[in-house]
Amino acid sequence: MRNPIRKTKSKSIRPKTTPEEWWSTSIIEMRPGVIRYRGYAIEELIGRIGFAEMVWLMTRGELPKAEQAKLLEAALVAAVDHGPQAPSIAIARMAMTCGVGINNAMASAINVLGDVHGGAGEQCVRFYQRIANRLTGKTPKAQTRQAIVAAVEAEMEGLTKRGVSRVPGFGHRFHPIDPRAPKLLQLADKAAAAGVIPGSFAIIGRTVETTLAKRKGQKIPMNIDGATAVIFAELGFPAPLCRGLFVLSRSVGALAHAWEESQSGKRNKGPIPRHLLWNYLGPKPRRLKRIR
Amino acid sequence: MRNPIRKTKSKSIRPKTTPEEWWSTSIIEMRPGVIRYRGYAIEELIGRIGFAEMVWLMTRGELPKAEQAKLLEAALVAAVDHGPQAPSIAIARMAMTCGVGINNAMASAINVLGDVHGGAGEQCVRFYQRIANRLTGKTPKAQTRQAIVAAVEAEMEGLTKRGVSRVPGFGHRFHPIDPRAPKLLQLADKAAAAGVIPGSFAIIGRTVETTLAKRKGQKIPMNIDGATAVIFAELGFPAPLCRGLFVLSRSVGALAHAWEESQSGKRNKGPIPRHLLWNYLGPKPRRLKRIR
Amino acid sequence: MRNPIRKTKSKSIRPKTTPEEWWSTSIIEMRPGVIRYRGYAIEELIGRIGFAEMVWLMTRGELPKAEQAKLLEAALVAAVDHGPQAPSIAIARMAMTCGVGINNAMASAINVLGDVHGGAGEQCVRFYQRIANRLTGKTPKAQTRQAIVAAVEAEMEGLTKRGVSRVPGFGHRFHPIDPRAPKLLQLADKAAAAGVIPGSFAIIGRTVETTLAKRKGQKIPMNIDGATAVIFAELGFPAPLCRGLFVLSRSVGALAHAWEESQSGKRNKGPIPRHLLWNYLGPKPRRLKRIR
Amino acid sequence: MRNPIRKTKSKSIRPKTTPEEWWSTSIIEMRPGVIRYRGYAIEELIGRIGFAEMVWLMTRGELPKAEQAKLLEAALVAAVDHGPQAPSIAIARMAMTCGVGINNAMASAINVLGDVHGGAGEQCVRFYQRIANRLTGKTPKAQTRQAIVAAVEAEMEGLTKRGVSRVPGFGHRFHPIDPRAPKLLQLADKAAAAGVIPGSFAIIGRTVETTLAKRKGQKIPMNIDGATAVIFAELGFPAPLCRGLFVLSRSVGALAHAWEESQSGKRNKGPIPRHLLWNYLGPKPRRLKRIR
Repeated sequence: MRNPIRKTKSKSIRPKTTPEEWWSTSIIEMRPGVIRYRGYAIEELIGRIGFAEMVWLMTRGELPKAEQAKLLEAALVAAVDHGPQAPSIAIARMAMTCGVGINNAMASAINVLGDVHGGAGEQCVRFYQRIANRLTGKTPKAQTRQAIVAAVEAEMEGLTKRGVSRVPGFGHRFHPIDPRAPKLLQLADKAAAAGVIPGSFAIIGRTVETTLAKRKGQKIPMNIDGATAVIFAELGFPAPLCRGLFVLSRSVGALAHAWEESQSGKRNKGPIPRHLLWNYLGPKPRRLKRIR
Repeated sequence: MRNPIRKTKSKSIRPKTTPEEWWSTSIIEMRPGVIRYRGYAIEELIGRIGFAEMVWLMTRGELPKAEQAKLLEAALVAAVDHGPQAPSIAIARMAMTCGVGINNAMASAINVLGDVHGGAGEQCVRFYQRIANRLTGKTPKAQTRQAIVAAVEAEMEGLTKRGVSRVPGFGHRFHPIDPRAPKLLQLADKAAAAGVIPGSFAIIGRTVETTLAKRKGQKIPMNIDGATAVIFAELGFPAPLCRGLFVLSRSVGALAHAWEESQSGKRNKGPIPRHLLWNYLGPKPRRLKRIR
Repeated sequence: MRNPIRKTKSKSIRPKTTPEEWWSTSIIEMRPGVIRYRGYAIEELIGRIGFAEMVWLMTRGELPKAEQAKLLEAALVAAVDHGPQAPSIAIARMAMTCGVGINNAMASAINVLGDVHGGAGEQCVRFYQRIANRLTGKTPKAQTRQAIVAAVEAEMEGLTKRGVSRVPGFGHRFHPIDPRAPKLLQLADKAAAAGVIPGSFAIIGRTVETTLAKRKGQKIPMNIDGATAVIFAELGFPAPLCRGLFVLSRSVGALAHAWEESQSGKRNKGPIPRHLLWNYLGPKPRRLKRIR
Repeated sequence: MRNPIRKTKSKSIRPKTTPEEWWSTSIIEMRPGVIRYRGYAIEELIGRIGFAEMVWLMTRGELPKAEQAKLLEAALVAAVDHGPQAPSIAIARMAMTCGVGINNAMASAINVLGDVHGGAGEQCVRFYQRIANRLTGKTPKAQTRQAIVAAVEAEMEGLTKRGVSRVPGFGHRFHPIDPRAPKLLQLADKAAAAGVIPGSFAIIGRTVETTLAKRKGQKIPMNIDGATAVIFAELGFPAPLCRGLFVLSRSVGALAHAWEESQSGKRNKGPIPRHLLWNYLGPKPRRLKRIR
């Protein structure tokens, strides 16, 4: 709407786009009776590739190796739910009591997976990638420990300079140790040992953890976002796509909670039981002077 | 908000609910360092169960057998995308050019998977289940063909009586034969042969198809919704949950398209190229008489 | 997507629609430098008509009389907020702490104004209109009191038959008397006395209230939905549009609460304080037997 | 979820918050039979203040003067609709054909009013305020023209440095002159002459326009976002709230279009007529090698 490119200009420069061109895509080809994703006929895919492989094919354009898909799947499994204290899950449940469809309740839930609630994984992938970019020439494995620590510290300074006080992917307000993280790291280690992934980002992630502990004087352990970020980065997912992967995962929790709540019979479920009223902190009762 | 139950009444009848009770759930248990879904520690699940198994565990409460999970996964894989002519997919792409997060674009997409765009699978499961309910006593396999046809015809009449002119799950405006349906049915047949599922709903679905052809004088073939409904019904999913399963599936397409569009550099992508303006059919230019 | 109309058929019957026709509208006409709503140039409207008049023009096609607009405006003013116990308002606040835009928070809020949370006004308009339709020939004013009561009772039976146990627009779980309703009715009465509106639906609404009291043995007073429904019905708004009018109104509360919450500095605000954990009611801890 | 503050720490530092405190607000006070907004009883407000005044009261905490409210109302009236080429409006229409509620269609529409589609007004207010902040000591009126130009140029450099290539609020891809802008500016001028607003931001906005013309060698006229930003800034609205004001305005167009589309009888309306298929640009048909 607010593209200041002059219309008269664009006329001369760009040939007119047809509606068919306007909606171009490399993802799906369709003709009556034919559906192909990235070149593969849908009937060849059904029953022969799994959900994680489909996610990969659709977003990356090629099929993953089986072991890559398993790693992706582990990360998708890990983040489905964090209970009704998470705004996404609470909203799924509340929405379901308001007389909307289950798709609306799920949409309401994932709609809030914003920079704060759903962005830590994406931010952490970006953070890891920046560190990796400082270690060019050799892979992290071939780097001296010192070089990696230096890269980590440089990027931590970068966060501070940009006003980011939390290192994304580390620390958890509730779990002293996030039980999902060590398990995911362990799978990454196995995959690295088997040559499925390079293993660089597992090293980087762990170095962030030790460096952070040194700086803060206490352990701030890697959380699920830090651990899924290791896996996503190892698998080569661009950072913004990782938010989407988290959304796919959390959608499962949203569905489960919406469904459970729909069986409660509650109507217009508010955040707290109905006999509890919020504190009012505004102006005291007053009269309207002005008359319209 | 509009619960006419009198407050005074509820006071005497119901003991006051605590906030902890208000948010009760059977899905997830949490303590610092501990996350359990349906009783299973998350660290035991990660890497050992797949995405489809997690969907099942979260929504049904128990883990499926491996072969059940594969069937569910096939259905999830089948419905990910139907291209930019589908409102859900077009909206994911348009949203992504408006400066919102990828989670918002995905939410906008699945928010429109309503009764018309996302409800056919759910409606078809309900339709199949109604037919099955007429065949009590024996499983459909043990019924005579005649009895099944009679049940199908009775429920088709029911649709007509309720003003439903389309049999949900059959016919497709674009595909003379929906390439996803026969493949899904084939997997259902295999699973039935192996005893993974009873196979009743595959029989019911096919009987609907033949009955419909007879009534309409032309084949109205089972589409993806009719075929996934066979699988969901065989696996015992309640109808409203099936809408949610479709949402999980279509979220993958929404993500892939949102991501692709985000790389186009377009801003505020409208439905048609910018040199095309809609037809205006309203009143001719007129002047405002009244002055405020 | 699932329109069973055969493609081959449609080809012969319908001429191909152009994209310009596909997006036809009677609402807005545009050319470079020209924007007209329903025929009126936007620059003639700005500063000369109010917000309620614009709502009317856009949705109804013509401008209202000034006194009609005032009545609509009163109804829009009345429903803006019902506090953080309302799911819509709680969601607006929670969303805002998740790192999404204020438009996303507002969308999340109004997305839950479904049949239960936002539908009572619409349902009540439909209910009133059905009663009015039984009183054809004469306006309600000209009807005997007995005839009106009979029509009300007939439609109440209708609700019961359709399984609707609450009369939409009457009773409130929290307010013994909803302070918004009498004030709105009073404005309707004034407008009826001045000939701005016929006054039929005020009579119908009050008759519903007295009839309901008789049937239930206690007063179930008209609430805001019942009172705005009187006004909307008097002004001739079709029932489904009335849901939209409520959405416009409640959007103001959603905005105010989203904005206030954004200044709290909270992150990922859950429904209850963080030291309170939900009750877990599911299976006891158990081990995963099956290994993938 | 990802708040790295240690639980043990917070225990000692912060007293436990009650649910009532957790949901504190200064906006609304409620008791059975009592609803007060910012201290005013709702029954005093209904019929006595208009919609724009209610928006102001709810978001700012105090009632505006009548002339301030009129200016706000003019801005709200101006931005309701820009036709089906705008993603928000197209989405409202498409959503409505998918079998969701009108509230869901409206939510889908405003959900995409993100940084690109809905953010220009907010960004422009921020831009103007930055310019104003450089002109401390005296009001813009009292400044020399030279000083204002210098402040504008400094902030334009600032935009360039931050990688912002478009000055928000100026230029329009479609309208050589946006017909809404001059009218809004004219109202601002009148209000400034009458002492309703200081008039500083009208001066700043016009200086931006002339400076921009000089830099670019052609006129890039102020558009609706630039003009509403003048009004919002004059009225003292914080920048992020201005996005919300635009959402309120555009919701009217979303409602009108959703409603009109709902009468079309279309199902699953895609972006282009159904006989047009998108161009597929991906890999050629290929076979799946790997078998699961």
